[in-house]
Amino acid sequence: MKNKTEFKRSACAIANTLDILGDKWTLLVVRDLYLGKKTYSEFQNSPEKIPTNILAERLKRLESAGIISKQSYQPRPIRYAYQLTQKGEALEAVLKEMVIWGNKFIPDTISLERVEKLVDRQKRKKLLSD
Amino acid sequence: MKNKTEFKRSACAIANTLDILGDKWTLLVVRDLYLGKKTYSEFQNSPEKIPTNILAERLKRLESAGIISKQSYQPRPIRYAYQLTQKGEALEAVLKEMVIWGNKFIPDTISLERVEKLVDRQKRKKLLSD
Repeated sequence: MKNKTEFKRSACAIANTLDILGDKWTLLVVRDLYLGKKTYSEFQNSPEKIPTNILAERLKRLESAGIISKQSYQPRPIRYAYQLTQKGEALEAVLKEMVIWGNKFIPDTISLERVEKLVDRQKRKKLLSD
Repeated sequence: MKNKTEFKRSACAIANTLDILGDKWTLLVVRDLYLGKKTYSEFQNSPEKIPTNILAERLKRLESAGIISKQSYQPRPIRYAYQLTQKGEALEAVLKEMVIWGNKFIPDTISLERVEKLVDRQKRKKLLSD
């Protein structure tokens, strides 16, 4: 016989999803990964300016939840590149529905694609100014 | 000329959505309203057992964000019944994608429909035991 799963609050899929993702920052890190950002400093350079302690804690939480994985790309000091797993990629649908809702009901907010273009423009600007 | 909108963190639709809904409880209250619950005590009786101070704060926040509206149904002491506005109803798509993701990636979690049936069963049980 299967053991009964122990849930933190209830068996509801929404409650359990919020236990992992329910805060103001975690889905912004997922958004950044979805947009192709990979490194700690790239996440920190996003317009929301995530505090460094929150970023470190969220990356750990996302990794232990199996939403992201990391690979070192530099040994001393060690640096990691992060990427979404299949479980993380599947959050695209949640992100997109939030964009649709935000665009419809919060004036002047911009879409993922628009954020992506702005990110590119900033990168180009940076390249030009370097 | 239109004034530039001032955003709390950025113009990103996801960031602004999370500024309203990004915590472990707010979307559970929206879920309850979506399932037909209307009163303070109905929200408190949900399996997650939302603390009363958090519930009061979230109802205020949801009302000031235009996601819910309230009507008094009893004068002394005053009691309110809450319902989703059109803006609140539109969160259905976000809730559903969270259910799909949770059901797929968090073992043994149950869907909105299943929660709804459980709620009904609890109501029937309560009726029978009253």
